[in-house]
Amino acid sequence: MRFSKLASNDVGWMSAADGENSCVISTRIRLARNLKKYPFPAVCDENTLRKIRREIFAACKEGNILKNAEMIKLEECDSVDRQLLLERHHISHEHAHSSDYGGLVLGDREMIGIMINEEDHLRIQYISGGLSLLEAWDIISKLDDELSKSLDFAYSDKWGYLTACPTNTGTGIRASCQLHLPALGMTGGIKGTMENINKMGMVVRGLYGEGTKVMGNMVQISNQVTLGITEERIIDNLKRLVTQVIDREKRARETVIQSESETLKDVVYRSWGLLTNAYKMSFEEALDLLSNIRFGIYSGIMKEINMGFLNNLMIKIQPAHLQESRGREMKPEKRDIVRADLIRDFLKGKI
Amino acid sequence: MRFSKLASNDVGWMSAADGENSCVISTRIRLARNLKKYPFPAVCDENTLRKIRREIFAACKEGNILKNAEMIKLEECDSVDRQLLLERHHISHEHAHSSDYGGLVLGDREMIGIMINEEDHLRIQYISGGLSLLEAWDIISKLDDELSKSLDFAYSDKWGYLTACPTNTGTGIRASCQLHLPALGMTGGIKGTMENINKMGMVVRGLYGEGTKVMGNMVQISNQVTLGITEERIIDNLKRLVTQVIDREKRARETVIQSESETLKDVVYRSWGLLTNAYKMSFEEALDLLSNIRFGIYSGIMKEINMGFLNNLMIKIQPAHLQESRGREMKPEKRDIVRADLIRDFLKGKI
Repeated sequence: MRFSKLASNDVGWMSAADGENSCVISTRIRLARNLKKYPFPAVCDENTLRKIRREIFAACKEGNILKNAEMIKLEECDSVDRQLLLERHHISHEHAHSSDYGGLVLGDREMIGIMINEEDHLRIQYISGGLSLLEAWDIISKLDDELSKSLDFAYSDKWGYLTACPTNTGTGIRASCQLHLPALGMTGGIKGTMENINKMGMVVRGLYGEGTKVMGNMVQISNQVTLGITEERIIDNLKRLVTQVIDREKRARETVIQSESETLKDVVYRSWGLLTNAYKMSFEEALDLLSNIRFGIYSGIMKEINMGFLNNLMIKIQPAHLQESRGREMKPEKRDIVRADLIRDFLKGKI
Repeated sequence: MRFSKLASNDVGWMSAADGENSCVISTRIRLARNLKKYPFPAVCDENTLRKIRREIFAACKEGNILKNAEMIKLEECDSVDRQLLLERHHISHEHAHSSDYGGLVLGDREMIGIMINEEDHLRIQYISGGLSLLEAWDIISKLDDELSKSLDFAYSDKWGYLTACPTNTGTGIRASCQLHLPALGMTGGIKGTMENINKMGMVVRGLYGEGTKVMGNMVQISNQVTLGITEERIIDNLKRLVTQVIDREKRARETVIQSESETLKDVVYRSWGLLTNAYKMSFEEALDLLSNIRFGIYSGIMKEINMGFLNNLMIKIQPAHLQESRGREMKPEKRDIVRADLIRDFLKGKI
């Protein structure tokens, strides 16, 4: 384990998600890029993978945005380290579990970075708090321009950027927003909302990417199409859709706050009672309870803690974060005990 | 409503159930008696019922044990009053809902009393805390002797005391113990224990008598047979059976405390967290949670409150107690809110 300092850090993009944007926890854009002169990672030999990684590290050091970034070789990270990077949304599930010469460049406040030798040579990514698609696009395209000065990206005039999987070809962009929809969760509207989004050519899924469950009423919405459409148009479409979902969630919140205020208060404080008293707690249960607390803060019922405090707690109770913070691997049963201890300690001063 | 003072009183027999006897919440003995010169209540006219009640009130005043007791005419009690008396185990469900000329004599600290014109003319009853069958039998047989000086009980040399229902004929005695079996509840042993008891010719049922559900892991065990056997023998049989169940529960408690201590602590404090934070709570949920707290006190995990405090809280959160204490009838939804408020207020000083 090498990231115990990282595990105890607050996450830059998390503490920004207060106030107006409380429905949108974070915004993320990633660009898939490949180097012209090498095959895609899946068919590279080890030497080539190492060479690719070296070149990308070097290109980062030459530029401005990532010159002081941390350069991480994945084979030097144990399974808990990788899980930690996954939980902080810096690497994907596949990247965490590959044994090849993957890499990670991690920039300022962990908001900007590059995943190296995952499915593509580069996955350039930027994550920020709240709904901030335009700022994110501005920053990530600057980094893209900077890198393209020293790296020769695989690009076809007909197809655009070439990628290992054809679903990314063209712009290579995936833009996503992580939303918190507690009122749609309470009133049962979340299922219909998710079905509608899928029909509109966007993708909706759980907190940790493809195939993961909806926990704590949190979903990720992202674009499906990357080809035959500009990046600006993709981002604009996503923004309009997310705004619609926010409106729907906000209407549901008004309904719950106005006509179910006693029930809401009960749900919020029961969650608080369990979080401040339990001696065993799974990540999933904690996330569901914190989802209720988050709604409680939004509605003004819960005054004991604020959104930033809650967001950071949500990061720290994840399995690998717990293990890094204690400096050892733990079985799930032990983690549930340590998680409950951490939550009680965190909230104790707030009672 | 006339019993608001009663509703706020601590219950004499409840506060005694601390320490060693924590598995046995209360012990109760009742004797069914009828007056020789009148038909059973079900076939009496109103005048006769009133006459019977007058004679019994008079007999009580002549004796020592009940001369200062409260004499209550049921037709003067509204539905909330009757429900309150039911919740304090002074009258039966049937008695609470009859519109006839029923009565109740209620003696010192609500531990001794007589239900008048229920199924029989007299149901003499004594209730005390913990496992105290012998003391209960001593006191109730003294009252029986005292009353028989001024009342002529229906008695046959062949059958013993005559009663409206043949299942009570003979001794007219029903002795029962209310047990709290949280560890058998947690380990799943409660079902088998209840089946065994039924096979042994004893009756086991929920907290409020026949046909009621097991709530909060509390059961009542009582004798079935009243005929062809002495009172002493009935009491001795019950005592031996209850002692066996206590042993079984205590062994289950040891197992849970030793090998499931983390789980127990979690269950106890989750219950505490809900009780001290919820804004709506049904009686059934409160009873289940308080059952866990009770086990927590027994096992030394929960130090915030003691058994007597808990027992009194259990009485006060019952539907009619809540309504008497607030001086008005309330719908169940409103009661759940008021109950949660009362529990939080009660426990607030203990956090």
